[in-house]
Amino acid sequence: MNCKIATIPGDGIGPDIVREGCRVLDAVGLKFGHSFSYTPVLAGGAALDATGEPLPQATLDACLASDAVLLGAVGGPKWDTLPGSKRPEKALLGLRAGMKVYANLRPALMFRQLADACPLKSEVVGDGLDILIVRELTGGIYFGDRGRNADNTAAWDTEAYSIPEIERVVKIGFESAMKRKNKLCVVDKANILETSRLWREVTEAMKASYPTVELSYMYVDNAAMQLVRNPRQFDVIVTSNMFGDILSDEASQITGSIGMLASASLGDSGPGLYEPIHGSAPDIAGKDLANPLATILTCAMMLRYSFSMEKESAAIEAAVEKVLDAGWRTGDIAGGAEARSRLGDKLVGTKKMGDLVVEAL
Amino acid sequence: MNCKIATIPGDGIGPDIVREGCRVLDAVGLKFGHSFSYTPVLAGGAALDATGEPLPQATLDACLASDAVLLGAVGGPKWDTLPGSKRPEKALLGLRAGMKVYANLRPALMFRQLADACPLKSEVVGDGLDILIVRELTGGIYFGDRGRNADNTAAWDTEAYSIPEIERVVKIGFESAMKRKNKLCVVDKANILETSRLWREVTEAMKASYPTVELSYMYVDNAAMQLVRNPRQFDVIVTSNMFGDILSDEASQITGSIGMLASASLGDSGPGLYEPIHGSAPDIAGKDLANPLATILTCAMMLRYSFSMEKESAAIEAAVEKVLDAGWRTGDIAGGAEARSRLGDKLVGTKKMGDLVVEAL
Ligand SMILES: CC(C)[C@H](C(=O)O)[C@@H](O)C(=O)O
Ligand SMILES: CC(C)[C@H](C(=O)O)[C@@H](O)C(=O)O
Repeated sequence: MNCKIATIPGDGIGPDIVREGCRVLDAVGLKFGHSFSYTPVLAGGAALDATGEPLPQATLDACLASDAVLLGAVGGPKWDTLPGSKRPEKALLGLRAGMKVYANLRPALMFRQLADACPLKSEVVGDGLDILIVRELTGGIYFGDRGRNADNTAAWDTEAYSIPEIERVVKIGFESAMKRKNKLCVVDKANILETSRLWREVTEAMKASYPTVELSYMYVDNAAMQLVRNPRQFDVIVTSNMFGDILSDEASQITGSIGMLASASLGDSGPGLYEPIHGSAPDIAGKDLANPLATILTCAMMLRYSFSMEKESAAIEAAVEKVLDAGWRTGDIAGGAEARSRLGDKLVGTKKMGDLVVEAL
Repeated sequence: MNCKIATIPGDGIGPDIVREGCRVLDAVGLKFGHSFSYTPVLAGGAALDATGEPLPQATLDACLASDAVLLGAVGGPKWDTLPGSKRPEKALLGLRAGMKVYANLRPALMFRQLADACPLKSEVVGDGLDILIVRELTGGIYFGDRGRNADNTAAWDTEAYSIPEIERVVKIGFESAMKRKNKLCVVDKANILETSRLWREVTEAMKASYPTVELSYMYVDNAAMQLVRNPRQFDVIVTSNMFGDILSDEASQITGSIGMLASASLGDSGPGLYEPIHGSAPDIAGKDLANPLATILTCAMMLRYSFSMEKESAAIEAAVEKVLDAGWRTGDIAGGAEARSRLGDKLVGTKKMGDLVVEAL
């Protein structure tokens, strides 16, 4: 298979980690007989500096013409004072809307090799954490009408959802649950929000088609608690754009493995958008310090979801596990000072970590 | 001083715990020469059963005519299938709006005697947790316009804030910080929401009046992470109604002391509304099993905020500490099976716990 990938290295450590992701993809290609070609394009701060726009039309066009998009990270303090329409975040929102990737899949996974970094007590975490958050990504209060009143003394934002918008993402929730532990929890605030009540109605109308899935509903405030109290009760969570933003960040932090977590944003057809969930970490950009594993695992998600290459995807995941099992660590997952000093030459940089995964393949 | 308190025992364990709260207030009255008189009124499920309305006008009138309102808990599965306007939650929203209590103060405190119940590792928690969340309570998406489109295929909710609404609650945030560690964090989603941008503008315009307060801003997704990762960075958080709902529940869960936490909802003048943050726990209602300490500490907040009785308030808090130090526990704070069995006759019920606090006073 020949796969055309648009890459958006972006800002900060983005270029460092995307480079390693592509190297790992190339190694997979060699091993399994596929070829991956890359079209690097600009978005975020890098695009602002070069073109004055956070998301040039040419970038969106190249993404839409590709089979999948790999994004490193966008943003940084350099562009933080720009007005709203010129902020690097606009690139993310523009890509999501432009590519119509309405379902953001964010696995919150605890790597057992990194259990020490988990902020929760071991009795809360038990033998691991593995939650999939499906966040609606192209609707809700992110894209609703907003503004100020005429005399600038008040502002508003609108949370809005239509039945088709809810249906398609809840469907992904049900289908994802069927591939996992068959549990789906719809998180909302149906005791207050009309949109949440519509989410529940739509879900109720769909549930008969998924008889094997155990369905539940939970208020978002309770979900924020339960993620801390008993995260192992969850399998798949599906929720709105705003609640998903909050809960998926909370969930990923809870794993303690945040430098390792991948995400996929999918639409009905067309390319998917793949990005590690961590930020652009401008302070360590270009210093060979960034952890490329989240990006490498993001590439595994790409193989699975965009190219149906299940065994290739699993090979990457196994290679990463092997490297972790052998004790190799980048700085961010090296633990405290004491743990670090014990690591010796197993404490490695971005490139070496990429090499190790390639070798393990 | 003679203080008129409207009590809303409410549903589930509400009556059990409000009874103990009042007994403790009476003991304080005796000791310090005040008299407290109580007017019990109906709200929530209890009111629905008796009158068909979750918040009868007579209840609101009695609350407004009082010096302070003590609420136990409202709601329960019995009323969960009623339509929106007949749900017990409507009583809460009606009381908040009717009493104009726009600032909800929710301290998230870890009681060191209960450190074992904290879900976070001890290195994350250090020597304790003490965060105050100030949640806007009478505005935002809770009270904004909402509805469905004509053909019922879409729904919307509106997050709306005016400058005066923001100003008055941010002021409480600044003032609270000055009574604590002088740190205020405004939590919002200013990279997306117009309302959040207005919150920031208003805060920026106010900050010169509070030169001793260290002010910061944080996005809500990051705040949800930081509460798990490093909760000790926070002193006072001020935020919108919806974000406050989510973050205050997360924060209270993080303390592990959720059966102990109190809240106060305050307006500019008129009575404050005081309630423990836990729910109505219908399964243990009337069985002398509920933990009355959150309600007792809620009474301490009432003395402090509504009656400026600082030493009386501190006396209640000291009495609760003393009872905990002596090892007395209700079931919810007794720990696992093993810890429980070690407790012996120090494992007590609602009334005995009330007795102990009264004695300790
Ligand atoms: C940068 C921001 C606009 C974005 C979001 O809120 O969606 C980010 O937090 C994310 O989750 O990808
Ligand atoms: C019951 C519900 C309407 C309420 C809220 O969301 O405000 C509750 O969660 C709370 O925090 O008091």
